Amino acid sequence: MNRRSFLKNAGVAGTAAAASTLAAPAIAQGNMELKLVTSWPKNFPGLGTAPENFAKMVSAATDGRITVKVFAGGELVPPLKCNDAVQEGTAEMYHSADYYYQGKSQAYAFFTAVPFGFRPDEIDAWIHHGGGQALWDEVGANFGIKHMVGGNSGSQMGGWFRQPVTSLDDIKGLKMRIPGLGGKVIEALGGTSVTLAGAEILPALQSGTVDAAEWVGPWNDLAFGFYKVTKYYHWPGFHEPGSLLSFGISTKVWESLSDSDQALLEGLAAGVNNMTLAEFNANNTQALDTLLNEHGVELIEFGDDLYKGIGEASRDVLAAAGGADDLTKKVYESFLDFRKKALRWSDLSDRGYMNKRALTDFS
Amino acid sequence: MNRRSFLKNAGVAGTAAAASTLAAPAIAQGNMELKLVTSWPKNFPGLGTAPENFAKMVSAATDGRITVKVFAGGELVPPLKCNDAVQEGTAEMYHSADYYYQGKSQAYAFFTAVPFGFRPDEIDAWIHHGGGQALWDEVGANFGIKHMVGGNSGSQMGGWFRQPVTSLDDIKGLKMRIPGLGGKVIEALGGTSVTLAGAEILPALQSGTVDAAEWVGPWNDLAFGFYKVTKYYHWPGFHEPGSLLSFGISTKVWESLSDSDQALLEGLAAGVNNMTLAEFNANNTQALDTLLNEHGVELIEFGDDLYKGIGEASRDVLAAAGGADDLTKKVYESFLDFRKKALRWSDLSDRGYMNKRALTDFS
Repeated sequence: MNRRSFLKNAGVAGTAAAASTLAAPAIAQGNMELKLVTSWPKNFPGLGTAPENFAKMVSAATDGRITVKVFAGGELVPPLKCNDAVQEGTAEMYHSADYYYQGKSQAYAFFTAVPFGFRPDEIDAWIHHGGGQALWDEVGANFGIKHMVGGNSGSQMGGWFRQPVTSLDDIKGLKMRIPGLGGKVIEALGGTSVTLAGAEILPALQSGTVDAAEWVGPWNDLAFGFYKVTKYYHWPGFHEPGSLLSFGISTKVWESLSDSDQALLEGLAAGVNNMTLAEFNANNTQALDTLLNEHGVELIEFGDDLYKGIGEASRDVLAAAGGADDLTKKVYESFLDFRKKALRWSDLSDRGYMNKRALTDFS
Repeated sequence: MNRRSFLKNAGVAGTAAAASTLAAPAIAQGNMELKLVTSWPKNFPGLGTAPENFAKMVSAATDGRITVKVFAGGELVPPLKCNDAVQEGTAEMYHSADYYYQGKSQAYAFFTAVPFGFRPDEIDAWIHHGGGQALWDEVGANFGIKHMVGGNSGSQMGGWFRQPVTSLDDIKGLKMRIPGLGGKVIEALGGTSVTLAGAEILPALQSGTVDAAEWVGPWNDLAFGFYKVTKYYHWPGFHEPGSLLSFGISTKVWESLSDSDQALLEGLAAGVNNMTLAEFNANNTQALDTLLNEHGVELIEFGDDLYKGIGEASRDVLAAAGGADDLTKKVYESFLDFRKKALRWSDLSDRGYMNKRALTDFS
């Protein structure tokens, strides 16, 4: 089927029904086209480029035998309906952040990022070599979806605040755009959390619908122009210390693939995972420079006492979320066990090194 | 050619001459076999498993059209002669650490790890999105080799010492197994550096040929049994804060591949890069537990003043190494510029987060 005419005819299809005849991947002359829906604006830095890079790599590596057609958020289904779209057969694949779907299963939150949780290399270790992949697939199986790693935003910033936050009291009454469990922590501390898709954040900040908002980091935040509303940019973020992006693929489609094609997609997804984090890290520092030097943004460190209070609230929120159901409990316990191990090693290696490295002036 | 009989006949071929008739990849019935030599013992944790995983993924993804035959160090060529083997046509590919070849070009050191240099996600950002890949290929082109990322050991430990090191004075006269620029730092501080392949380290520690030795981290160090000689295990390592492993492929072979096959190999190499770091991180913490609780190993933190002194020596050693020749100078300057940017971002994100995360007890 001609993709453009389909798009034109379907418009922004918010329901699966309109496209449910397309449940099986289009196969012609041995070639296969996989429709991949995303939660991101077209080619949005890092988030939107990751699935585009995956599509290019799959197409190149198979010499066009498998093509992946990427749809921006809202183009085929609404940005936060990717998981439903694959479950219902509107698309064969998605690229998103699985915590958007914690309403379907609370366990999904642990496969993106949770407050005081894993950094990028820690969640990769859990997924690839700590039992995480099997648990992720167990969660996805309930929705007919197989999961693969799809990039990482890196450690995120604390967010944009109309007024600096210096104590736990400042969080009381605060209205903040912060989705998922991070939002529950803000609520536990007396604030209000709001979930908005990326493009809706700036208007909400401008109109005063929210007092504060986190999105990703300097690169993405610069693109959305939050500095136009407030100059107070807090660090470090507690809520998303390394958000793993997710590929979801219809289990039916997955099981129809040869072992060889499964290996190809998994290997290239891990490749995208590696290259996307690199892209975020390389660009965040440049964007940070622009925010500081061209837009007069002020970096404000969260104080130790404040952070400790947020940590204690986070621990309780995670424990409550972790008890949501049997499968979530299993995921939470695996997370908690691996967290203890991962922190011990990170503290000796990366954290120890970074603190000592900073003692010597290299400039 | 039958692989086993070739191996049997060639034995441990130390020179390229014996195998120089095998310069082109074996192609039969459209299938291609690439011989890949490594610097590692067969299936050695992380280092040896990375190229095996790559071989499995390539074979699976191409349904056997491309096979990669992995040779352990010493099986086809000596462990530290992989770069020469590909340059001379004995093998089509290698998996190694490029600082072993800094005798051929000083610039190679910057593509593995240098003292006070990049952590894993920092070097990935430089390679993939900071101009590093183009420079790496420029270095490799002098030897007819194209490079790809091949895994990362993660931040390495400071090493095993017969006596704890508490001041710069303790480094004077110290004989330490520590290759590359880390070794030059030890020499700048009055010690002696020794380069030994992995399997040679334990005997050297046992016989007293060296007073100290670094290898990788808990996982690999446990496998070699260094705890049998000394219990003093220093952290954090200054010399290899995230050693990137390297695939090298003959430029001639590379250029004979279709765009599609090039994309496949590059994508899967990035996948291996991601999964190997995860494997190291997941296993290091478990091995650390074994070292501490079963073998009575004592963790000793390097003091701040000592570390600052090592940092200053490292800065000077890097500056001297960076002036070795025009190409190395170009690489060094790119490294230095990206280091400044990467540290600024790491300090705000990963470092900031890890220090604050540690304030709350989650157990």
